[in-house]
Parts: sequence; C-alpha cells; structure tokens
Amino acid sequence: MEPLLDDDHFHDECGVFGVYNHSEAANLVYLGLYALQHRGQEAAGIVSVDDRIFHVSRGSGLVADIFKAREMERLKGRQSIGHVRYSTAGGSINVRNRQPLVVDSADGGLAFAHNGNLVNGVEMRRMLERRGSIFQSTMDTEVIVHLTALSRKQTFPERLVEALKQVRGAYALTAMDENLIIGVRDPSGFRPLCLGKIGDDCWILSSETCALDLIEAEFVRDVEPGEMVVIGPNGLESYFPFEKKARSLCVFEFIYFARPDSTIDGISVYEARKRIGAALARENPVEADVVVPVPDSGVAAAMGYAQESGIPFELGIIRNHYVGRTFIEPEQKIRHFGVKIKLNANPMALKGKRVILVDDSVVRGTTSRKIVKMVRAAGAKEVHMRISSPPTAYPCYYGIDTPTRAELLASSHSVEEMCQHITADSLQFITLPGLYQAVNGGPPESFCDACFSGDYPIPFSAHDEGGQLTLLQEA
Amino acid sequence: MEPLLDDDHFHDECGVFGVYNHSEAANLVYLGLYALQHRGQEAAGIVSVDDRIFHVSRGSGLVADIFKAREMERLKGRQSIGHVRYSTAGGSINVRNRQPLVVDSADGGLAFAHNGNLVNGVEMRRMLERRGSIFQSTMDTEVIVHLTALSRKQTFPERLVEALKQVRGAYALTAMDENLIIGVRDPSGFRPLCLGKIGDDCWILSSETCALDLIEAEFVRDVEPGEMVVIGPNGLESYFPFEKKARSLCVFEFIYFARPDSTIDGISVYEARKRIGAALARENPVEADVVVPVPDSGVAAAMGYAQESGIPFELGIIRNHYVGRTFIEPEQKIRHFGVKIKLNANPMALKGKRVILVDDSVVRGTTSRKIVKMVRAAGAKEVHMRISSPPTAYPCYYGIDTPTRAELLASSHSVEEMCQHITADSLQFITLPGLYQAVNGGPPESFCDACFSGDYPIPFSAHDEGGQLTLLQEA
Amino acid sequence: MEPLLDDDHFHDECGVFGVYNHSEAANLVYLGLYALQHRGQEAAGIVSVDDRIFHVSRGSGLVADIFKAREMERLKGRQSIGHVRYSTAGGSINVRNRQPLVVDSADGGLAFAHNGNLVNGVEMRRMLERRGSIFQSTMDTEVIVHLTALSRKQTFPERLVEALKQVRGAYALTAMDENLIIGVRDPSGFRPLCLGKIGDDCWILSSETCALDLIEAEFVRDVEPGEMVVIGPNGLESYFPFEKKARSLCVFEFIYFARPDSTIDGISVYEARKRIGAALARENPVEADVVVPVPDSGVAAAMGYAQESGIPFELGIIRNHYVGRTFIEPEQKIRHFGVKIKLNANPMALKGKRVILVDDSVVRGTTSRKIVKMVRAAGAKEVHMRISSPPTAYPCYYGIDTPTRAELLASSHSVEEMCQHITADSLQFITLPGLYQAVNGGPPESFCDACFSGDYPIPFSAHDEGGQLTLLQEA
Amino acid sequence: MEPLLDDDHFHDECGVFGVYNHSEAANLVYLGLYALQHRGQEAAGIVSVDDRIFHVSRGSGLVADIFKAREMERLKGRQSIGHVRYSTAGGSINVRNRQPLVVDSADGGLAFAHNGNLVNGVEMRRMLERRGSIFQSTMDTEVIVHLTALSRKQTFPERLVEALKQVRGAYALTAMDENLIIGVRDPSGFRPLCLGKIGDDCWILSSETCALDLIEAEFVRDVEPGEMVVIGPNGLESYFPFEKKARSLCVFEFIYFARPDSTIDGISVYEARKRIGAALARENPVEADVVVPVPDSGVAAAMGYAQESGIPFELGIIRNHYVGRTFIEPEQKIRHFGVKIKLNANPMALKGKRVILVDDSVVRGTTSRKIVKMVRAAGAKEVHMRISSPPTAYPCYYGIDTPTRAELLASSHSVEEMCQHITADSLQFITLPGLYQAVNGGPPESFCDACFSGDYPIPFSAHDEGGQLTLLQEA
Repeated sequence: MEPLLDDDHFHDECGVFGVYNHSEAANLVYLGLYALQHRGQEAAGIVSVDDRIFHVSRGSGLVADIFKAREMERLKGRQSIGHVRYSTAGGSINVRNRQPLVVDSADGGLAFAHNGNLVNGVEMRRMLERRGSIFQSTMDTEVIVHLTALSRKQTFPERLVEALKQVRGAYALTAMDENLIIGVRDPSGFRPLCLGKIGDDCWILSSETCALDLIEAEFVRDVEPGEMVVIGPNGLESYFPFEKKARSLCVFEFIYFARPDSTIDGISVYEARKRIGAALARENPVEADVVVPVPDSGVAAAMGYAQESGIPFELGIIRNHYVGRTFIEPEQKIRHFGVKIKLNANPMALKGKRVILVDDSVVRGTTSRKIVKMVRAAGAKEVHMRISSPPTAYPCYYGIDTPTRAELLASSHSVEEMCQHITADSLQFITLPGLYQAVNGGPPESFCDACFSGDYPIPFSAHDEGGQLTLLQEA
Repeated sequence: MEPLLDDDHFHDECGVFGVYNHSEAANLVYLGLYALQHRGQEAAGIVSVDDRIFHVSRGSGLVADIFKAREMERLKGRQSIGHVRYSTAGGSINVRNRQPLVVDSADGGLAFAHNGNLVNGVEMRRMLERRGSIFQSTMDTEVIVHLTALSRKQTFPERLVEALKQVRGAYALTAMDENLIIGVRDPSGFRPLCLGKIGDDCWILSSETCALDLIEAEFVRDVEPGEMVVIGPNGLESYFPFEKKARSLCVFEFIYFARPDSTIDGISVYEARKRIGAALARENPVEADVVVPVPDSGVAAAMGYAQESGIPFELGIIRNHYVGRTFIEPEQKIRHFGVKIKLNANPMALKGKRVILVDDSVVRGTTSRKIVKMVRAAGAKEVHMRISSPPTAYPCYYGIDTPTRAELLASSHSVEEMCQHITADSLQFITLPGLYQAVNGGPPESFCDACFSGDYPIPFSAHDEGGQLTLLQEA
Repeated sequence: MEPLLDDDHFHDECGVFGVYNHSEAANLVYLGLYALQHRGQEAAGIVSVDDRIFHVSRGSGLVADIFKAREMERLKGRQSIGHVRYSTAGGSINVRNRQPLVVDSADGGLAFAHNGNLVNGVEMRRMLERRGSIFQSTMDTEVIVHLTALSRKQTFPERLVEALKQVRGAYALTAMDENLIIGVRDPSGFRPLCLGKIGDDCWILSSETCALDLIEAEFVRDVEPGEMVVIGPNGLESYFPFEKKARSLCVFEFIYFARPDSTIDGISVYEARKRIGAALARENPVEADVVVPVPDSGVAAAMGYAQESGIPFELGIIRNHYVGRTFIEPEQKIRHFGVKIKLNANPMALKGKRVILVDDSVVRGTTSRKIVKMVRAAGAKEVHMRISSPPTAYPCYYGIDTPTRAELLASSHSVEEMCQHITADSLQFITLPGLYQAVNGGPPESFCDACFSGDYPIPFSAHDEGGQLTLLQEA
Repeated sequence: MEPLLDDDHFHDECGVFGVYNHSEAANLVYLGLYALQHRGQEAAGIVSVDDRIFHVSRGSGLVADIFKAREMERLKGRQSIGHVRYSTAGGSINVRNRQPLVVDSADGGLAFAHNGNLVNGVEMRRMLERRGSIFQSTMDTEVIVHLTALSRKQTFPERLVEALKQVRGAYALTAMDENLIIGVRDPSGFRPLCLGKIGDDCWILSSETCALDLIEAEFVRDVEPGEMVVIGPNGLESYFPFEKKARSLCVFEFIYFARPDSTIDGISVYEARKRIGAALARENPVEADVVVPVPDSGVAAAMGYAQESGIPFELGIIRNHYVGRTFIEPEQKIRHFGVKIKLNANPMALKGKRVILVDDSVVRGTTSRKIVKMVRAAGAKEVHMRISSPPTAYPCYYGIDTPTRAELLASSHSVEEMCQHITADSLQFITLPGLYQAVNGGPPESFCDACFSGDYPIPFSAHDEGGQLTLLQEA
C-alpha cells in the first residue's frame, strides 16, 4: 500500500479549535475539526474539562473515523479544545506526538493545541533536559508546556507569556486550564487564528473562519499577531505581551492551504485566488481554447484566469471523490496508473484543444508531469501550465511540511528546465509582486514568502534545522 | 450516528466490471471498481477464477477499505469480475445480498454481477421455490442463476440466454464460468455497459467508460441493448438472442448517475450536462448576479447555464472533501447544522447577490430547503433555484433506488408549492422536451423517463411492486 | 503467526443447540454455544425466527468475540438454533461454510445446524447439480437442504425425513422453520444429541448436557439414534422414521471430545474417563513416583490411574490459561519453544521423579515428543507415557477432523517404535476391550471405534473419501 | 457487557520482564510476558533499544492480541523490557497509564517497568509539581522517572538510586537506558523479581521463574530485597544501596498470585499450596465424601487437603476454558446464571455427596455464595468450605488491587456470619501461624500479611491512601 496523499503539495501541519462556555463544547470542537480537516488528516484530538477532570480522546486518521458517539459522550464539560494534524514524518506517524498535549501540573490540568513550529525548539529542549526535565514526545509543544510549568509567575496566562517569550518561531496556540481558554498568535502572525462567538458568552477560537460558519458562530475578528486572548469567567481579555514584530502571515494560506470559504486577516481566500488567477492571465497570456483547473486546488485561480482571458473554463480533469487514503499497489505491469486513481482526464473537454492547465504550485514536479501526460493522452493539442504561485525553491521552517531544498524542483531548475521536465508546451508562474498585488492589493510587507524568496523572517540555527528527535518511536 | 449519504438524490444501485485474459485481472477489476465507486458505495466484491477454483472477496464499504493487499493476492487468475452496490435497504445492508453471486453447479463455478432490477423477479422466485429451489439471498440475481442452472441447454451462454428469456426488467450483467466472460444488456438497454480492450486479447466490460480510462484500456464500443457478448478462447462473439425492443436508456444517467468523464451510447455525459444547463437558461431565464452550482452534481449544468446566460459562474458553495460516511449526531441544541457538514456557503461569493442555484433534482426537497436557507443566511438577496431535470414524480422499478411515490415532493406538489416548500424566490425545472433536445438533440424515443412521466416501458405486476423479500436478515 | 490449536488431537467438528418457545431464545442459544465452545472454536452462528423473519448472525472466532450486545438484540423471536464449528480446512476457514445454513424456500425460511459428515455427500451433490441445483457452500448440510426443498411431501418434518433417507453418514441435526424446531440423530447415533426443558413448554436441544446445566434447563433424555423429535405448538412428538441400525456412538466423545461434566447416552464422561484411567493402570502398571496428567484432557484419566495405582497424583505440567489463538513465530534461534507456550513443566513436582504421564491420545506424536522432552528437562528420572485410548491408526469419516492415514503415527509404527519416537521410557495404550469395559461395563457393540480398528460401520465410496470441494474460496 | 474478571479475588497489578544482550530481545520479552500474563491482563507493553532509538509498543488487552508480527519487527535491538498490567481503575483503563514508561532525558532515552505501589507517591508528585514538573500519567512510576532525571549524580544507576531513596513503598522495577538494564527490588522485598541467564552473556530479569522456563533460560537466583542489579557491557554488578529493612514478601503470592510452577525466594509455589491445603485439613477436619477444588486457584490446596485427609479428590466443578473477557448480559429472566458461565458443577461427582470445597480466599463473598448454591443444586448433601488463606479484612497499599475495607466481607463479619452469608454448612480458614508453617516451615517474620492482620510494614499517610489522581482521563 502507498499513501495517496503524496500529491506533491506543501502540507499544512495543523488546525486548532477551542470552545469556551457551551453545554456541548466537545461536540462543537468535533464539528470545528471537521471543517478544519483540510489542515491535517493524519491525527486528531479533543480534550474537554469538567469539574477539574480533563477528558481526552486522540487518535490517528480522519475526524469522522476517530471520534465515535460513545467516545464523545465521555468528553463532558463546557470548555474544550481540539487539534488536527498533518504528520511531518512522511507516511507513518509517531503516536507519542498526539495533540492536544495534556498534562497535570502544580495548578491542575493543562491542555495545549499548537499549529506552527519553533526555530529554537531543539535548543530549548536540550536546555530543559539538562535542568532535569523529561520529554515524552518530540513535539515543540512539550517545550512550551515545560517552560510554562517552570515559570514562577502567579497565573496560567502570565506563565504562558513567560514561556513564549523564551521561544522563537511560528505558533497559533490554543491552551486551556480548568477555568480559562487562551488563544495566542506569535508576534509575526505566521499562522492564522480567529475569534468567534455564539450568543453572548460562548467564545470560539479557530484556525479558519470556515469552521465558525459550520457551527453558526458569529465571526468576531482575527486574533492579532502577538496578541494573547484570555477567555474566562470575566469574559475576553486581550494582551500584547510580546515585542512587536513585522507581520509575516504565510502567503501560501491564500494560494493553497486555507479553505476558499475562509477569510484570513480580512482577505477572502476565494476572492484572492480568483484575483491571482486573473493576474496570472495578465502576466502570462497564451492563445488557447480552454482553461482547465487541476482539481480542486486550482479551480478558483482557473476561474479567475478564464474570466480575465475570456477563454472558456472547462472541467477537463475529473476528480474521483472516493479516493481513500491507501491504495493497493498493483504489480509492475499496471502500476504506472499513478495519479489517474485520483484524477481522470475528461476527453470530451480536451480532445483537439489547446489547453491552459492551472495549478497552485510545482513542488517536486512529479504530479505535474503525470497530469500533463494524461491531458495530452486525452487528445489535447497543446498544454500550457500556469501556476498561481512563484517557484517554490526554499523549505519552510515555520510549520509547513516541505521537501528538503534538494527535492524542490525550482531550487535547481530554471523555469525553462521545469517546463521540459513536466513536458508542457509552456510553463509560467505568477511573479511575487503580481502575487502580492492580487492578494492584498499592495506591497508584500505583511507576508512571509520565504519558500519563494529564501528571505526567512526569523533566523534559525543549523542545530534546529537538522535536529532530528527520533529517540522514542511508537506506532 | 446517521448516514450522510442521504443527500436526497436518487441512487444508482450498481456498477459492474469484468476482465478477460490479463495476468493481473483482479487488480484491474479493483481499479475499475474504484472508478465506478460513484455507482455504489455500500458494498463491493471481486471474484477471480484460476484453474477452475473461484476466489471470492466481498465486503461492506468502499472499495479501498474492503480489499487489502493480502486479500488481493488470493484473487489469482486471468479472469475476474466485480461489483459495487448501493443498498436499497436504507441505511443498513443485508450481507446475504453480496455480489458477485458465486455458485457451484453441474458445470463448475459460475459468477454473476448484476446492475438492474427484474420486474418479474418475485414471481419467478415463487415459481422456482415451488419447483424446490432454495434461495440464500433476496437478490433478483439469484433468480437468474437458478434459471441458468436449470436450463437443459448445452453451453453456459445458451443456458444464460434461456434464463434471461424468462425474466423481464433491467439488467447490465457480467457473468463468468471457468472459461468465459459474458456481458449482456437487457433488450431495452436501461443500464449502460461498454466494451474495452487492452492490447490484442485482453477484453474489458464496464458500466462506464471512465473506468476504461483509468486502466488505460481502449474503448471499443457500447454493448448494444439486447446484445450478449461472449468472450473466451475464441475471442469475442456477439449475439442478439432476445426479441427486439425499443431502446429505453435511463436518462438520469446523464442528469446525475454517471461520471461526467464517461460517454454512454455515444453521448458525453459532461457535454450533455452543460447542454442541459444551457437549455435550462433558455427555458427559464432570470435576472441575477451569479450562477452557483450545488456541488458536485450541479457543476456542469451550472457552467452551461452561466455560459448561455452570460451571468458569472461562482463557487458560492464549498464542499468539504473529508466528509465521511457517518457523523456523530450532536444533541438537540446544535443538531440543526445538517447539510452544513458537507456543504458550506462561501459568503464572499453570495453576499448581496441575486443567486441562481443550479442543482440536478429535487427529490424529497429536504436538502434543497436547507441549501436555500444557508445561501440566504450567507447574505444572498435573492435565491432562484434551477433544476436540470423535470420534476421526479414517479418511482423507478428498473434498478434505481427511489423513495416511494408519497415521499416524492413532485408527486403531490405543484412547482409553485415546491418553490414555497424550499423557500426559494423562484424554482424552475427543465422540460422533458428541452431535456431530450439537450441530451441527444432530438426526440425522446430512446430513453426511459418513467420517473418524470410515469410512462413505464416495461409493465410490472402489483406483486412485484410490493413484494418485500425480507425473510432472511443478516448484518 | 501460526495457530496454537494444532495440539495434535482429533478435533470435533461441531456443536448444535436449539431453543423452542422462550422469550430470550437467542440469548439462551448464546449461552448454550458458550458451553459447547470446546466442540468448535473457529466459527459460530445463531439464527432466530420472529414473525416469519429469520434473523441470522454468523462469524469467525469464539462465541464471546462474535456476538456483541447490539448483534444479539437483532435476534428476536421465541425460536432459535445455533452452531459452533471446527474447520476442517486447517488453519484458514472458508466463510462460505458458515452455519446455521439459512435459506428461503417455497414454505418460507428454513435453518439447519449440523454436526456430522455424510459419506455420500459428494455423490448426492453431483446428482443434485445435474438436476439443476446450485451450491453456495461445500457443506454436506446444503445437500440435506436441497433434498428437503425438493421433496414433494406435505410438511417440513416429512420432507426432512425424505431427505435424510437419501443420505448416509453421521448427523446430529437441529433444524427450524417458522413454527417448529426439529432434532434428529442419524440411525447409528454417531454424534450425541440430548433434550432438555425449562418450565412446562420451553424445549432445548443440545449436543451435550453441560449446556443444559449452564442455562439451568432440566435434562429430559437423550435423543435416540434414528429418532426425530418435532417440537411445535403441539409440544414434542417423537418419530423413528429410519431403518433401524446398530448403535455406533463415537467412543472418542468419552476419551476426549465431550466436556467431563456432560453425560452422554446415560454415561458420565467424567466417570468414564476416571474408569479408563483405572483400567489403564491395571493393564499397564509401572513402578513410579508420580502420576502427572497432560492438562487438561488427561486430568480425569490420570486421577483414575493414580487412585487405582496408589501412586500420588501431581500437577507436573501447568497450562497457561491465557494462550490465545495466534502466536507470533519468533526467529530461528528461539522458535523451538513450541509447546511450552501452552504447557510448562513444574520442576518441583518432577525433579528426580519417575513420572507416569497420562494423555488421551497420540495422533502424529509431535506434541507427545515435545512434552516428554520438557518433562525430562525439568528433572524427571523416568518418563512413562500412558494413553487412555488405543492407538489411532485410521481416519474418521463421520464428522471428526483427523489427519490422513499416512500422518497418523500409529498407522505405520508399532507401539515400540512410537515409544522410541516420543523418546519415552515406556509407552502403553489401553486395549479396546479394556476401553469398552471401562466406558460402559460391557461389550463394544454400541460404539464406533473405526479410528482404532479400521472397522467402519457405514461404508463410503472412494469418491467421497477424496472428494475435495474447493471450487469456491472466500476468506 | 460486563467483565468476567470480577471473580472476587485480589488482583496482582503487574509483571515485569527484561532481556539484556540477545539478538531477539523483544521476542524473548514477548514470550516472557506471555508466561506472566496471569499477573495482569488489561494492558501490556514492550520497549526495545537499538542504536539509541527506543522502539515502543503498548496496548490494551492480552499479550497475544496486542503484539502482532509487524509490530514485533519494529522492536529491534539487543535490549528490551516489558510489562503486563492489571488496571486498578475497575473495568475501564486509562490509556495514559501504559507501561513501560519511556521518556527522553538529558542522557537519552529511559524506560521503566514497575510492579508495586509507592505509599508516598502522591506526596512526592505534589512536591515535584511545585518544582515545575509536569505529569502525563497518574502512575507512581512517573514520580520515579522525574526524580531520576532531576538527580545530579553522574550515572543512570546512581541517579536511580538517589530517586528510589526518596520514595517509600513496594517496587520490583526493571529499567533501561541505551546501554544498561537495571533490576531493583524495594528493601522490604514486597514483590518478587528473579534473575536468569541464556548462555554466557544474555541476562534475564523476570517477576517469576515460570517465564524463565518458557524461554529456556537458566534460573540464576532471586534479586534480593534492597538489591539493585546493573547489567551492562561489564556484565552484572550487584549493589545494596538502601538502608536494610525486614523482609516483607507478599504472602499472597503463594496463596493465589504466582503461577504454581514458579519458585519465589526459594519456595515452590506449588509445594507451598499443597502444604497449605494439608495444614488446612489438619486444622479444620470434617467428615466428608469428596474434596473438590474451585478451579483453578484452589486445585493445589485441594490436592493437599485430600492427601492429608484421605478423602478422595474429585473435579466436582469444571471450568470453561473459552470464557472471554466480556459477556453479553442477558435480560432479567436469565441473568442470574452468573458464575456458571465460567464454572459448571459436575453432577456425577457431587450428587448425594458430602463435599469439601477448597478455595483460596473469600473477598466480597459474592462468588463463594454462587458456587455453594451451584454445588448444592447439583445434588451435594453437605457443602463445607475450606479457605487456604486467613480472612482478608484489610486492603493492600503495596501494589495489589483490593476492594475498600468496607467491601471486604471479613472486615465486618465473623467467620460464623460469613458462613451463613455464603450458605455453606461450614466455613473454615487456615490460621496465620498455620499458613506460615506451611509456606516456609517457620515464623512469619519474612512476609507481609497486612491484608489479614492489618499490620502494615510501611506506614502510609492519609493523603496517599485517599489520593485519587484522576485529572487526566483518556480511553
């Protein structure tokens, strides 16, 4: 068997969700995670607190497969947080790294759900171990928990602030003790986090707004970069305890990660994608008969491209909605079907046509090559690939799962060479200025574009880059 | 838990697939069933034959979940047939009714995979029981098998012909003994069946062409209504052993059942859907700002509508791709989220807009009502529903799972009343002539439209209509 | 993994149980099968009938693992029969052969649970297939069902009689239509079947009396060889419709198969085993320090041996009660531990002792050899093996799973050679006259001892002996 | 469903096993845990270390169900420790409390498998939490791990010594870093631990000797109370780092917990049980016809009783070997069958007899009452219960799962009243002096008998007695 998820994309590592003060807190978290499933499909967890007891349920797989009715009934209480995770470890997952991380401390239970990655995580871990701390996972989150527990400050929010002041990197964090739920976004604001409300006194924290829609919560506002919101019996309190930094929201959220029906920091993901598609059409026009999206990530950009160019939009590739997570690898003779399990060319829309294929990115190039071949086999006369991101030439250290630099096609190939590699008639990427113009109408100041530019907003040590923590393996 | 599949559609009951003379016959059937999964998600089975031994694997659920690597290794041999099934029994499934049906007879093993429904099935069953036959399932297919075994003819094809001459109804059948694979389509041609080829001497039978594409088989031609193809050591032989009847291909295959990248009896499903959408726009124009499909079944028709009307096409509803088959029903307070688990309004594409919603059918009206409400809650100023089929007022007896007449909204409500029921600003259905014009450019002679017109091409006895065979229940 | 059940014994193939007229019929059958689990651990099934609907539940494994609470709730009705099965197919099981066999016929549902084996099963099957019957399993039981359905007689009992008159072999059968439960034992009475009662009008059929004890049913009497009891609204009616034959109860039931707390045809299994042990002591005395049973099957005979000989009884071998059905085979170096997983020598009871080991049989000799070696390694000075059955030199054709003749150690080795093979200091078997004297105090007229004597009470054709029906394989 | 394990016994909480320097270390641990399964059936875990990586596998249920072949292949390396556990939390189990506990620390991975209970565990935990430690389980073991990690000593053994000097209570501990395996037994020696060897340089640690037998390891000696053995590249080194205390081996190991084929601190469990039975016969003679054990725990004592009294030993109660861990509770009418699922009276051995029933203990009295009733219903004329332990009137705080004082029948009932409660004709317990005389031939100085006498060798604070740590619940 081999995973079908290896679809040659960058992968988001997590989504977080929290509910304060609802009689069905854990059920709402369940629904929220359902809506955030695209941010992580390998594991999920929910923890609720009821009368000081923390009830935990965590497992591998999709939300709908992990949490069964009987399990949900255990998760009592009016406070709950949850987490979905994409594993960085490739196919297999280390069960020790399940989130939320829940521990017992001097002040009772604490639970943490973390989206992001620390650049000084390994360094801090080594320091803590030398102090006598023991680690039961390889997650950065456990570093934050230890630092919180070791703080001499009075309250949980104060201790968490002291802990976070010692770490550097990306985090959108939801944490909970028996009385409070805290949401906090790192000073650069790499990963999104927003705030919602049901009625007067039930508060919601979510990685994306689409999850608020599902549970019919009112969108209140985004949590700001560097902001900590503390939600408890006194309502919501907002703090900005960290040194101010330039905003560095991950621009890839708009290109691929976020769901199109979400709005992040005031920008509609769907509208942004359509604008990117339109900009792509303006920057890289080509004479053609049809604009065909690579489903589903390329659809909005392809619509924008088609609208701008006036070339008809066609569903030239059909996605099989029943593709599971594993697939039996057939023997040699028929194993080359590869990508066709998931995507099938629609010959009627392609035969004899000059086709503009719109996709969101080219990572290793393996999938693009197969798609071009498939489209051509279905009768396309020309295949012009248009990509709604600049070439991805650098790995991410802020919480996104990317191949190593060497594996990134753009790190060692010119656009020309990439075009030859994927056997397209032409290949064009949107420019970085064009991208920013399309996303927020202006200059790139507020985004992280390290994966395109190699310009990393937060430096990282060589130690952290290569620091593999694989001492404890549990399947 | 409740099934999420109850999405208020008619449901196809089956898909069949067969491979003759390939070293990886069962693996190809596995891939074929993968591509036909949309025709039935409740159960699947594969049988192969190797040196007279019939190896069988059948189970409940999706193809990817049922057949594991170890299981597939058992399915040796160069001949194999398979089946995917939608259960007619509502949520639960009677495991006795698994297909392919495989039996031992005087001439060795026989396997049958059947898409369709006999209108004299119960009658024939009672006759056979009176003769002393015993039944281990409630499937019509078992009737065909008994009749085949009882025939005094010399060869398996001859015996199968004699059996089929005694039954009336819809069938696209794939059958196999230890030497031959047979494909046969009933004289009316209700259900599709096509023929493909890999290389010179490997033949494929499939419900739809999209499955041929996946395995890179060459499409040869459709099996004709009333045709039996016998594939064996002598290659393919074609017979027309039945009395000729008017063609009655199920028109709903073009509206909803078939995958858009399939071509049935010469007509591209995708193109037909776009033409239906365009016809719908011509028949029922309305001033509006956006055309929004109900994903995924309404997408092609909405594209046709948008193109014809010049009104922009927008993804105003986003489908969650990670929806599983079951879902934990939350308590009273939050249970009304219903359809939102699967579909989420994209507020940016809807707010303040006059929206034309395009869907393929209104069956009970429950889902339509929820979608209209959701779209309006997302800020739509007007909601105009346009349906790419005529009102479905009559149940199907030819192999499609439909509600009873009483449950069909159109059987007791005028279009006006239906519009009120689903709370839309307007509701319009394509006309039957408009539908046929769009599908095949001409008169309706060659299709079955009983579900719209009540005009049943093959009469059925009251006995069969109500004949519930629920004597043997096994979960 | 390898099965641990291969403990070098003959294996019973089935147990049957039936309940007529109890509000918890299926629950009682569940309990009954629990008590009969020793007769078959590979598969089990229960069927109940409620208002003409037959509810079926069947699965692989142990009773407690197959039937879960939710499943049992489905099994409504006041009539129920059940079956436990030992697979003849070695490790793996063909799921097509699940019992009870439940079919739909001209007169409604019929269910059959069968313990035994027909000697003309293959022959009858071929005849039926030539008539046009189809088979969905390889079980003899399906032959009986076809013959019953084909009978022109008026009532179910009459039809079943007509069917059974056409077959030869061993059967203790429990069958059920929607009104009646029938128990029938073949004219030779190979396999046991008894009758119990709860209150005035609830009747029980069971392979052994120990299952009556569990459900606190009163033991009424054994069903006689050749007797058919029909239990229905008119109470119990008894018939002797078959030609009378000499009684041939399987004597191995007393040696090994039956549970010691059962009584069969008036003889307590426990008492019989003790008497056999005593007779063994008289026939084959030896000077020794301790009598040690091979647990658990040798315990009662060892007690009888110890009591008769005056040599102390000691638990020199301890059985691990947590042995599961599968076991991970370690690598070469440590794989020879074999039997020790299940049995461990108790060194304190063996060291320096002259040991008499009492076991019930030597089949292939593999396990005996390992046990002798283990006992010696624990310090035993001498090891004298005493077996409570005569040498088993012939396979069984009446429903017991035995190795082929060639695999039976006694078929090709003298007792002397067998002793050398298992490396014991001496080896003795009880004589056939001694066995009968011990079991029923008299001559062997009423038992089948074919496995010792090769004297088969019912002849079988070569065709049946070798007739492998493996056309349909389903895992 | 309800657990069948509630058989009204005290329950051992754990078994530990370790292997140093074997190419199949984890496979040997698997076999060792198999042999120790009687010490804990609710969960098990194995950890191996290979080139600094700790490979962990832990799960709920029986050893044979948890560790599958594929899982075992992951557990590479020449060092491995394992653990079986009986949950104290009643039926359900908190998955957070899985053992071995494996953590990452300043000096790499550490693994701990612990049998026992600390009396100052909660106190130490609170102290550690105040220092900033976080806890992920409710196990005492985690306290030991934190103390070890916080130690400033140089080596792992030194740090572990410093940690253990701070705790009080019962422990037989197996611990491992990447180079060493350590076995240590608390200064009182409450729980057993022994040392074995395979060849010249492979060392084994095991809770009981029966596990050495299974893997054909040579028994070297018991680990002494207060001894720490450190096994590494330099071979085995022995230390006695703790203040010397009086030996307090749990006497219940001889009565019930240990397997009869084990030898603990020089005493054969089997021989001890037989001697206890004989002493019981001398102390409490009664005229009777048969001595019947309650299987399996009463068998050896009953043999001793029978031998001493000259009254015949009979298997008057038969145990069903296929009893699983859960059982479907039938409805009201038939639910009183209770204990009969597991034990069945053998009427032939009881009818008309005066019966001496020998069991190991009476805890709540519920099972004893059912057994007496069952034996009487099978026809016994008199039932005299003889118990091979003194009345258990006090709970255990050293690692055995006992009911609260109030639930212990003996805490509030005289022997006379207990006899009435269980409806026996007479009831007698062995005396404490008689017990010690039988076990080690002398005075009770070297055993813990707190559960009989209330004389606790190590004092405990009220805090620890009641200290429930249930903050983190995970199923």
